[in-house]
Amino acid sequence: MPITVVGLDGDDTLWQNETRFNLTQGELRELLHRHVPDADVDRRLFEIEMKNLAVYGYGVKSFTLSMIETAIELTEGRIPATDLQVIVGWGKRMLMQPTELLDGVELAVRELSGRYDLLLITKGDLFDQESKLARSGLADLFLGVDIVSEKNVSAYRTILSRRGIKPEEFVMVGNSLRSDILPVLELGARAVHIPYHVTWRHEHVDEESLPRSGWRRLERIGELSGLLAEL
Amino acid sequence: MPITVVGLDGDDTLWQNETRFNLTQGELRELLHRHVPDADVDRRLFEIEMKNLAVYGYGVKSFTLSMIETAIELTEGRIPATDLQVIVGWGKRMLMQPTELLDGVELAVRELSGRYDLLLITKGDLFDQESKLARSGLADLFLGVDIVSEKNVSAYRTILSRRGIKPEEFVMVGNSLRSDILPVLELGARAVHIPYHVTWRHEHVDEESLPRSGWRRLERIGELSGLLAEL
Repeated sequence: MPITVVGLDGDDTLWQNETRFNLTQGELRELLHRHVPDADVDRRLFEIEMKNLAVYGYGVKSFTLSMIETAIELTEGRIPATDLQVIVGWGKRMLMQPTELLDGVELAVRELSGRYDLLLITKGDLFDQESKLARSGLADLFLGVDIVSEKNVSAYRTILSRRGIKPEEFVMVGNSLRSDILPVLELGARAVHIPYHVTWRHEHVDEESLPRSGWRRLERIGELSGLLAEL
Repeated sequence: MPITVVGLDGDDTLWQNETRFNLTQGELRELLHRHVPDADVDRRLFEIEMKNLAVYGYGVKSFTLSMIETAIELTEGRIPATDLQVIVGWGKRMLMQPTELLDGVELAVRELSGRYDLLLITKGDLFDQESKLARSGLADLFLGVDIVSEKNVSAYRTILSRRGIKPEEFVMVGNSLRSDILPVLELGARAVHIPYHVTWRHEHVDEESLPRSGWRRLERIGELSGLLAEL
């Protein structure tokens, strides 16, 4: 069955995301090392983020709250409130930055939108994701937008069934094996992996856990249109 | 045209919400008065929340970040980090509390679900709202769930058109004139207002700005089924 609907991930597929988190995390490391020079900031932050995931979900606001918690814990409450105010400011800056499209995205999405129904399927904070899409200049090219709290099999099943899309006519494109590829293959749809040079540790899966067929890997989003025409 | 689809708001229509925010805000007032006895905590918090709305959107995480900002500002950075950790804890407590259904909700929703297609239409934080619904015990009674970042005319239009619902067969039920009644009437659908005893200042609208017809007011959700049968 030929592909008629293309699902595109947002963060690190269409626009910069993880590098922004990494930059801010670097600033946190520097700030906290002034108070506790030997602290393993990255490790503690990751632990706190994982512990908070079930309460906060994904996104910049959750990240900001986890940074604040990390800062207070690692300094044993000695960090001045003014430094915490700086951390709050980093969160706001991340939420207000312009959406920075990755190389080749604008052209590729424009071309694809003429041939397929495009869905933006992204996870995380509803408000932040809508705002990023609005500032991306790409919103008009998508037939629909689905922002979900977790990209698992049941989330994809709901999206496809609500829109009356058969798995055989659907392909998902994204940078995360865990969120964009694995659950989609489990549904019987196809997937295209376009890796990004940084992956959040939480999104990592071993390639051995993936089926051998049903998915492809591309270096660049510019190659997507050619690949889809072959499928 | 008879009603076939009923949209129900969540916060303060099906379950407790505003009273929880008010309780936490009371704790913040008390905490900050230990540092700055004369501060007008409520006023400053509201101003900061309004300023942050365009960056954070609605929800408990936004509220927590605004409380932290208010605390640092009003104490001019003198508040100890350990007090800020307490505020972070309040936010988590709000997010983890059991969903407390309002009086008569369970019976009313169960009865309605046998006669109409029910949609939960709620605004705010995606993760928090999904989690509240999951813990409410009501999830199976809804045909669909739409969590939007703002309940305006265009959000309702998208929901109805995506589900193929005509405005004439739809009624929205909720406690907020601003979010549940006004935009729905503008679309040509009907609405039922069930006031809650506390309304967040941001949700307030003057009744004079409402059309005279197209909506009704009920005291209790238990009366809804009878009213809908008449419509």
